[in-house]
Amino acid sequence: MSRIGLHGKLTAIPGRRDALVDHLLHAAKLVEDAPGCELYFVSVSATDADAVWVTEVWRSAEDHQASLSRPGVRELIGQVMPMLAGPPERIDTVPIGGKGIAAT
Amino acid sequence: MSRIGLHGKLTAIPGRRDALVDHLLHAAKLVEDAPGCELYFVSVSATDADAVWVTEVWRSAEDHQASLSRPGVRELIGQVMPMLAGPPERIDTVPIGGKGIAAT
Repeated sequence: MSRIGLHGKLTAIPGRRDALVDHLLHAAKLVEDAPGCELYFVSVSATDADAVWVTEVWRSAEDHQASLSRPGVRELIGQVMPMLAGPPERIDTVPIGGKGIAAT
Repeated sequence: MSRIGLHGKLTAIPGRRDALVDHLLHAAKLVEDAPGCELYFVSVSATDADAVWVTEVWRSAEDHQASLSRPGVRELIGQVMPMLAGPPERIDTVPIGGKGIAAT
């Protein structure tokens, strides 16, 4: 197992960004106590009025995958997908260290 | 003042990525106690062997700017720049909430 990071970019249908943010903040609540969830925060783009970023750090890909089975998560994904203008973009990383995540 | 976030992508000259990571972890140490620094962590790309991501959250743009004047920071930037294959890319955000950052 090795730690994984994600920078996910979600672009909302015009007018739906704030609702998308609310749903993603709810997703953060659903997974904050999930095993292996180190970081899960939501930002809006400073340059694109429709874009939202989700930044995640997980102890392992397996923990991340398992979080999708937590109560409410699949329902939430089902609510979020129709708000999106296109498929999510995803940057995959391996977090190393620094302030705000555990040392490896 | 409003909180700001950055996802910075640095691409190293081939062979210099690990040295770049070490320098950025040192940068994290230099700023971890800086006023307004909420998050500063370093990841490597999972898909590009030369790319490194720095993820930052600051209480304000002013706090971020002031951190550049901390002891050692400008010297470190001077050491890092020659390791890069090109100019850094930067995604600017406004962090909203979730796990791992303070609530607004």
